[in-house]
Amino acid sequence: MTRLTQRRAARRAPTGPPQLPWRRLRNPYRPLEILSADQIEFIHESSLEVLERLGLEFLHDATLDRLARAGARVDRATRRVRFDRAMVMELVAKAPAEFTLTPRNPERTVIIGGNHINFGGVGGPPNCSDLEGGRRPGNYKDFCNLLRVEQSLNILHMIGGQPVAQQDNPAETRHLDAYYALLTLSDKAWQASGLGAVRPIDAIDMMCIARGMSRDDLARSPSLMTVINTNSPLRVDGPMAEGLTAMAEHGQGVIVTPFTLAGAMAPVTIAGALVQQNAEALGTIALVQLIRPGCPVVYGGFTSNVDMKSGAPAFGTPEYTQAVIAGGQLARRYKLPYRSSNVNASNAVDAQAAYESEMSIWACAMAHCNVVYHATGWLEGGLVASFEKMILDAEMLQMMAEFLKPMTINKDTVAIDAMAEVGPGGHFFGAKHTIEHYETAFYAPILSDWRNFESWKAAGAPDALQRASAICKDLLANYQPPPIDPAIDEALKDFVVRRKLELEAAPA
Amino acid sequence: MTRLTQRRAARRAPTGPPQLPWRRLRNPYRPLEILSADQIEFIHESSLEVLERLGLEFLHDATLDRLARAGARVDRATRRVRFDRAMVMELVAKAPAEFTLTPRNPERTVIIGGNHINFGGVGGPPNCSDLEGGRRPGNYKDFCNLLRVEQSLNILHMIGGQPVAQQDNPAETRHLDAYYALLTLSDKAWQASGLGAVRPIDAIDMMCIARGMSRDDLARSPSLMTVINTNSPLRVDGPMAEGLTAMAEHGQGVIVTPFTLAGAMAPVTIAGALVQQNAEALGTIALVQLIRPGCPVVYGGFTSNVDMKSGAPAFGTPEYTQAVIAGGQLARRYKLPYRSSNVNASNAVDAQAAYESEMSIWACAMAHCNVVYHATGWLEGGLVASFEKMILDAEMLQMMAEFLKPMTINKDTVAIDAMAEVGPGGHFFGAKHTIEHYETAFYAPILSDWRNFESWKAAGAPDALQRASAICKDLLANYQPPPIDPAIDEALKDFVVRRKLELEAAPA
Repeated sequence: MTRLTQRRAARRAPTGPPQLPWRRLRNPYRPLEILSADQIEFIHESSLEVLERLGLEFLHDATLDRLARAGARVDRATRRVRFDRAMVMELVAKAPAEFTLTPRNPERTVIIGGNHINFGGVGGPPNCSDLEGGRRPGNYKDFCNLLRVEQSLNILHMIGGQPVAQQDNPAETRHLDAYYALLTLSDKAWQASGLGAVRPIDAIDMMCIARGMSRDDLARSPSLMTVINTNSPLRVDGPMAEGLTAMAEHGQGVIVTPFTLAGAMAPVTIAGALVQQNAEALGTIALVQLIRPGCPVVYGGFTSNVDMKSGAPAFGTPEYTQAVIAGGQLARRYKLPYRSSNVNASNAVDAQAAYESEMSIWACAMAHCNVVYHATGWLEGGLVASFEKMILDAEMLQMMAEFLKPMTINKDTVAIDAMAEVGPGGHFFGAKHTIEHYETAFYAPILSDWRNFESWKAAGAPDALQRASAICKDLLANYQPPPIDPAIDEALKDFVVRRKLELEAAPA
Repeated sequence: MTRLTQRRAARRAPTGPPQLPWRRLRNPYRPLEILSADQIEFIHESSLEVLERLGLEFLHDATLDRLARAGARVDRATRRVRFDRAMVMELVAKAPAEFTLTPRNPERTVIIGGNHINFGGVGGPPNCSDLEGGRRPGNYKDFCNLLRVEQSLNILHMIGGQPVAQQDNPAETRHLDAYYALLTLSDKAWQASGLGAVRPIDAIDMMCIARGMSRDDLARSPSLMTVINTNSPLRVDGPMAEGLTAMAEHGQGVIVTPFTLAGAMAPVTIAGALVQQNAEALGTIALVQLIRPGCPVVYGGFTSNVDMKSGAPAFGTPEYTQAVIAGGQLARRYKLPYRSSNVNASNAVDAQAAYESEMSIWACAMAHCNVVYHATGWLEGGLVASFEKMILDAEMLQMMAEFLKPMTINKDTVAIDAMAEVGPGGHFFGAKHTIEHYETAFYAPILSDWRNFESWKAAGAPDALQRASAICKDLLANYQPPPIDPAIDEALKDFVVRRKLELEAAPA
C-alpha cells in the first residue's frame, strides 16, 4: 500500500492545480459559545418536556414494538411515542463520544469526535450545473465527474452522500451504481443511502467485499455512515426508521439530523427550532442506542430559517450561524460528535454563494463541528451540485484549515535578528531569515488571483467563477483513479449485477 | 434635534433599499484566543527587546528632542531612539481603555473600547470603480458620491478616511474640500488626514466650527481620529510625526497602525511581523502619551503577508486572519482599544472579494476589534474604492451584526405550545406563534436573492454584482443630506475659502 501510495503521489505531483496535502484537521482553539450554561439547560429541559409531553411519531411498527418493550409510552392509534426523560438520557449516554470510520483505503481513516473536523462533499441535489453546460437534471456521468473532483480535492476528508441524483438510472437500483462508483472512483469514506433497509445493507455488503471482511468484522470496524433526517416536526417515517435500524444492527454510523426550518417545519424562533431539533435528535439517538448500545451516532443540526415573505428556505443566514454554534454547545452537553453543513441559497456561484458559505464554514469551525457535510459543491439551497462551487468551497475550506494551524512562537519565528539585519526603513525580501523561510511561509491559494489589475486585465480579467471553471477542468483532466485490487473490482461488479437482477425481479 | 431626526426618518422611510436601523454594536461573546498567555508574553517581551536593542527611527527633530528629554536614548546621527521598557509601559498605561468620539450630530457618537464594534468606510484608495463606469482615478464627484453611500448605509458607524483620493483637486488644499464634504454630506464621525500638521489642524478648526466650540472644548470632547501608519520597519517619518503631534496636542484620537506586511516590511513569519507591529505600536503610542497623557489612542494592527512568488500584498488570507485575532489579544494585554480592517486583494467584486472580506470580518469580530476600518468599499488591496463592494460589504456587516445579537431563550421563544398546536408532520406557517412573530423573526437581507431559480432566471438572472449596482444607485437616488444650520454651513465655506487662499499663498 505504501509503495502504491508513493507511486500515485509521484504520478500526480507535477499535474493538476496546487493544493494542500490530505491531512487530518483539528480545531486547536476553544469552541465559541453564544449561549450561557443556563440557556443550554433551558433548551435541554424544554426538549425533554417535548419528548415527554408531545413525543415523537414513528411510522414503523417494529420501532413502536421496540420502544414499547423498552418502557416508552406508545399510543398505537396515533403511533406517538412519549419518552421518559431518564430513559432518553440513559440511552443517549451509551453513545460513544468519538469513533473512527475506515474506508477501503485505511490511510483515509477519519476520526469523528473531539476537536476533529472532517469535510464531506455535497450530497443529494437533484440537479447539477457547470459554467458551460448550465443547469441540468442529475445523471450518472455528472455523478461520476463530481465524484472525481471530490476524490481529487485533498481538503475533502470524505465523500458526502451521492453528489447528485442519477435521474437517468432506475430508482430501485441506482444506489448500486452509486456505490460501485464510490468504491472505485474514490478511496475516501462515504455515506450509505438510509432510505429503507435494502440500500444500507447493499452498502454494507459492498464495503465488506471492498475491505475483504465479514459483516461482523465491519460492525467492529465501521466504514459507513448514513444521514437520517427526521420528518420534522416530531416524526420519523417508515423508510427512515428501517434505514437507521439496518445501519444500527450492523454497527454502522447514524447521523441524526432533524431538518428544522424555523417558520416552516419548526417554530418561527431559532430558540424553538433548537428545542425541537434537540428533542428529535435525542429521541432518535436513543432509539439507535436501544437497537445497538454503543453504535456510532452523530448529533446533526440543520436548523435554518425561511424567508417569511416567500416561504423560501434561507441558508448561511445570521440565524443559521447562531443555530450551528448553539447546536455544537448542545452536542457537547451530551458528549456526542456533531454534524453541520456548508450551505447557501444563491442561484449563482457569486459573492452571495461565497458569503453565505463563509458564514456556514465559520459557524462550523467555531462550533467544533466534527462532520461538515455539503462542504463542497452545494448551491441553490441544495437543489444544485455545482462544479465551480466545488472549487470555490475547496479554497474557503483550505483557508479555514490554514487558519486553524497553530502559530509557532519562538526565537526563530519572532526573528529579531532579521529586524536588526534589515534595519529601519529597509526591506525584508533579501534577508537571510526570509530566504530560509519564504518557500513554506504562507498559504498558496487555489482560486484567489493576486495579480495586479493590469496583469489580470491583460489575462482577460477572469473572475472567480471563470477561474473555478478552469481549475475544475484541470482537476478532471488530471484525475487518477485510486488503485484497486482487480479481484475486488470483479467481485464488486458481480455483486452489482446479481443484486440488480434480484431487485428488478422483486415486486415493486 | 429629535424632531429633525424624526422628520428625516419619516422622509426616508418609504425610499431606498431596506436595511437595519443605525445602532451601536457590541460583541457579547468571548473574544477568540489563538495564542496562549505564554505566547502573548513572548511576543510582548520580544517587542520590548526590539524597542530596547534596535529602537525606532524618528525623522523629526522635535520628536527626538521630546523623547530625549523624557529619558529615551537618542542617537542624533542615525535618529534612532532606544526605549527603556519601563518607560514604554509606564507611558502606554496612561492611555484610556475606552473613549467616545462625538461628531457634529451627537446622536452619531461612537464609543471606542470594550466590546464595542464600530464600522468605518474605506479610506485612501487612489482609484474608484463601478460596474458601468469602470475603473478610474479618484475625483471629487466620486468622492462625494461614495460619501453619500457611506452616509446612507446605516451599518456604518463612521466614515473612514477620505473614501477616494480627489486627484482632480490641488494636492495642497484638497483636504479642505474633503472636510467640507465630510461635514455637510454626512453627520457621522470621520478621520482627519494625519500627514503633517496643517491637515489635522484644519480638521480640528472645521470641527470646532461645526460643533460651535473652541479647540479646548474639542480636546475635552474629541471628535476626530487619524491613522498613523508607521513606515515599517521601525521608522516614523516627519509628516507622520508632525501629524500625530498635532492631533495629540489637541486631544484628538490617534490610531497607530504599523503596516507590517510579512515578507516585505516585516519578517516573513506572522510571529515576527506581530513582534514588529507590537514594537512600533507601543513605541509610537508611548510618544502620543508623552505629548498628552490620557490622549485617546487605538492600537492598530495591519499585519498581512505578501505572495512570495510575486511580492504582491495579499489580504484576507489565513495569515491575516491569525494576525488580526492575535493583535486583539495584544491590544487587550495593554488595555487599549483595537483597530483592524475588512480587506481583500480581489480585482473584481466577485466570490474572492467576498471570501477574503469574510475572513477579515470574522477575524475582526472574533478579535473584539473596536474600530473596523475599510469596512465597506475596499477592493484590489486598497487601490480601488468600489461602489458595488460598498453594498456587498454592507450586507456582510449586517449579517455579522445580526449574528452578534444575543438569542432570547424563554418560555415564549422555545414555543412548546406551538409544537403541540402543529403536531407531528404539520406545518408552522399558520400557527398562532408564527403569526405573532413572523414579521420581525428573521434578518431581511439587502443583497441576497432567495428567489427560486425559475423566478430569478425570469428576472434576468442578476448575480450579486449586478444587484449591488442597482442597490447602490437606489441609495444614491434616495440620498438626503443630513440637516445643518445654514450659519454653520456658511462659516465652514468661509473657512475653506480663507484657508485655500492662505495655503496657495504659502511657499510650496
